[in-house]
Amino acid sequence: MATTESKLNFLVLCLRGTSQVFFMENSITGVLFFAAIAVASYQSGVWATTIGAAVGVVVATLTAMLLDADDTSVSSGLYGFNGILVGAALPTFITASPQLWVYVVVGAAASTVITAAFSATLTKAWGIPGSTGPFVLTGWLMVAGAYSFGGLSVSGDAPKLATDYVQGLVSIPAPLELVQIFFRNIGQVYLLGSEYSGALILLGIFIASIPAGIAAAAGSAVAMIVSILMGADPATVQAGLYGFSPVLTAMAVGVIFLKPSLRVALYALLATITTVFIQGAFDVMMLPAGLPSFTAPYVLTMYLFIAPKKAFAPHPHAAVKGHLVAPAADATTGKAAAN
Amino acid sequence: MATTESKLNFLVLCLRGTSQVFFMENSITGVLFFAAIAVASYQSGVWATTIGAAVGVVVATLTAMLLDADDTSVSSGLYGFNGILVGAALPTFITASPQLWVYVVVGAAASTVITAAFSATLTKAWGIPGSTGPFVLTGWLMVAGAYSFGGLSVSGDAPKLATDYVQGLVSIPAPLELVQIFFRNIGQVYLLGSEYSGALILLGIFIASIPAGIAAAAGSAVAMIVSILMGADPATVQAGLYGFSPVLTAMAVGVIFLKPSLRVALYALLATITTVFIQGAFDVMMLPAGLPSFTAPYVLTMYLFIAPKKAFAPHPHAAVKGHLVAPAADATTGKAAAN
Amino acid sequence: MATTESKLNFLVLCLRGTSQVFFMENSITGVLFFAAIAVASYQSGVWATTIGAAVGVVVATLTAMLLDADDTSVSSGLYGFNGILVGAALPTFITASPQLWVYVVVGAAASTVITAAFSATLTKAWGIPGSTGPFVLTGWLMVAGAYSFGGLSVSGDAPKLATDYVQGLVSIPAPLELVQIFFRNIGQVYLLGSEYSGALILLGIFIASIPAGIAAAAGSAVAMIVSILMGADPATVQAGLYGFSPVLTAMAVGVIFLKPSLRVALYALLATITTVFIQGAFDVMMLPAGLPSFTAPYVLTMYLFIAPKKAFAPHPHAAVKGHLVAPAADATTGKAAAN
Repeated sequence: MATTESKLNFLVLCLRGTSQVFFMENSITGVLFFAAIAVASYQSGVWATTIGAAVGVVVATLTAMLLDADDTSVSSGLYGFNGILVGAALPTFITASPQLWVYVVVGAAASTVITAAFSATLTKAWGIPGSTGPFVLTGWLMVAGAYSFGGLSVSGDAPKLATDYVQGLVSIPAPLELVQIFFRNIGQVYLLGSEYSGALILLGIFIASIPAGIAAAAGSAVAMIVSILMGADPATVQAGLYGFSPVLTAMAVGVIFLKPSLRVALYALLATITTVFIQGAFDVMMLPAGLPSFTAPYVLTMYLFIAPKKAFAPHPHAAVKGHLVAPAADATTGKAAAN
Repeated sequence: MATTESKLNFLVLCLRGTSQVFFMENSITGVLFFAAIAVASYQSGVWATTIGAAVGVVVATLTAMLLDADDTSVSSGLYGFNGILVGAALPTFITASPQLWVYVVVGAAASTVITAAFSATLTKAWGIPGSTGPFVLTGWLMVAGAYSFGGLSVSGDAPKLATDYVQGLVSIPAPLELVQIFFRNIGQVYLLGSEYSGALILLGIFIASIPAGIAAAAGSAVAMIVSILMGADPATVQAGLYGFSPVLTAMAVGVIFLKPSLRVALYALLATITTVFIQGAFDVMMLPAGLPSFTAPYVLTMYLFIAPKKAFAPHPHAAVKGHLVAPAADATTGKAAAN
Repeated sequence: MATTESKLNFLVLCLRGTSQVFFMENSITGVLFFAAIAVASYQSGVWATTIGAAVGVVVATLTAMLLDADDTSVSSGLYGFNGILVGAALPTFITASPQLWVYVVVGAAASTVITAAFSATLTKAWGIPGSTGPFVLTGWLMVAGAYSFGGLSVSGDAPKLATDYVQGLVSIPAPLELVQIFFRNIGQVYLLGSEYSGALILLGIFIASIPAGIAAAAGSAVAMIVSILMGADPATVQAGLYGFSPVLTAMAVGVIFLKPSLRVALYALLATITTVFIQGAFDVMMLPAGLPSFTAPYVLTMYLFIAPKKAFAPHPHAAVKGHLVAPAADATTGKAAAN
């Protein structure tokens, strides 16, 4: 009984999240919104958007629960609406593939973290609601990143870049190459493509701190696995260019800025995988400017994953205080100002 | 008598605003600056820049007064200098047309809101003066947007994009098309191009909140009218792609985040029209990156229009406190530090 | 003896800064890191990167000392690690030349100011560590700027833009042209290319404030000298387009927002030179978008140079407080939360 009720409650939360896209908190409204999405899928014959929307709101809401996010915000659906938009948008712009669904799940989970980050920065400092900003940021980064991965094909709905990297099959490097990539991922933090330089640097890290050394090694391994499985350009992977930002992310999020624990390790894993995707995005976005991406993928990921604080919930869809044009909104009498 | 004096006072405010471009607060300096602008117009034969500058400072200053902005700031000309720069810049880069003057007026008014937004964020949190940042942001967005509108032609002074959309005549869609656009503008929030989806969504909104439904409908109508009259690409307008961000803006600014009133409705109208222009800007700016603009035009507009708070005035052109290199500036003795 | 000890201490600070790239504070680790950089130089035969790294960490650390930055941060190497990255990165992407070394020194010094700026904004408001963000920002701006200067040639390691401006020899304009540039630099703040307009404006400034007039004149002269010596496009220099942002920077940093002193004058000189480089960067970055850079180079420089406050040190590489996923990190008992 309790389980059935709990499942029903969770369904209600997700439907509220669905309605929050339009600032509502109403599960019936959410049902109608889902019907609207399904009508469009029926017309186009493409059901991936409806499925993606459902996956998005479920994963985003679950992630908020697993992170012990503010109860009131979760139950209002405030952690779900960016996730459903990510889930609906990615299949709209990216052709269905196994990697797309990995992308939708990670994107929806990341949207919850980014929602908390916006809340802890924009809302904390200035009272500005994050609204669908987290969706925009997540969506841009994921679609831009899709151009970099052979496992993801940006569909005709979006303009195609000349640099869209297409690769039919994922090729696994030979064992010796894997060792080289592992160390180059570390050396490239200093812009060094030599595996020997990378080994020296890793040794230097272990001398100073064993946990930091473990995190660096784990970050390099995760980046190597994810970039190969996503079908990233082999030459770029082999040069260690997909790994140096994730190495820094794994160290910063897993050991340096948060107190190590199993929970923090899982959080750092999500951050490290996200950094690989953002690396793909920046490679594409920086190209027209003729600029290397440096450690920007690490910096952006780290800022976003470190920003969330316990005490901050996303701004509810309710009036902000003390606004320039709404003097009477704060007055206790509620008397409208005559201007 | 009082009226004449009041007009004289207003003229002094505008001239002070003119001098604030160079951090001064001196109406004689402002007269010389206007003479400098006029000299250049005389040399080039193009008077639109001088007229634009005059319109810009007047509209920006008037907007600050209508918004009950901080009296001291208004009288120092701190709300005028971004407006005069917008008014001088737009005719420099865009050929004169009726739509240019709409653009100058809206741009100058928006520059006042953005000045207050910078003040309530940059200055509040960090004591960083907004300075001409609002002009830069407004100018970039307006010039980028001009490439999207047939009624605005970017002139040879600025580099020309391949995507500059040129249309000689504004074409009004048939009545049935107008109904389709109205509902598609709403459906596109969920990336749905179907008018039936849009109708279902609007119904869902009305079920949850009648004022929100009215705002959504009004936002869609305003976006439709403005995008058609500005000569935006008909195919894009008909797909509802010029309307979904303005729909969200109308709801967020008019009903959700501010307490509804006549004053708030007018503020939301300015925000909604501004969103249509920013939509045009983002379509151009995102193109080289191969990315859709998602709801970014709404997000940016909403952040900027919600940020202004009553208690914050633009940073005056005076010393900031506690700076790294100026220790003695804060000491009461004023004794210079010997370094 | 004391001098030798002091020199040894400074060496230790620089090596700590070197190790801070990987969040460590350990001079032995720093020696290993330098060995790693030297190994790569030995392999490639290019020693400019190793020399650049050494210059970068020394200049960045010295700059922090000259600015009286927080002692603990300086001695932890927190002001050095962005500098060493800038020093290693610039020779990686730009071919060696006399101007490159000017670039490395100014870039490393600017990285210290930007580190303080990130600290006074990101860290102050939200507890987010700036980390290598200052390096990324500095690196992007300097490499982008290199495309604009004939004295700097972006090497094959980075993608080349069609707009890379190449000029073999620095040409000094005739005396009359120098006078024209001097006044146009001022006139272009109002988008006016006429030297007469510029003279009128300078007169207006002197009428309101003599120190402001001196700063404007000095800013124009500095911008003229730097842009010519860096080999910027002569037509752009002669139009006054390299000078208007530096003029504003010289006024804002040297007279308006900080209390004038010898120390502030030197700080304003660094800011003014930095603005010329950022002008070069923006010209390149804005080109694909078809947008003029307006006064953005001034705005960005001014924000970055005004943001640093005395009381703020860069975030140490230690745990942040009150994070969403690390509840136990703040508890005094240190008992791990069971989730």
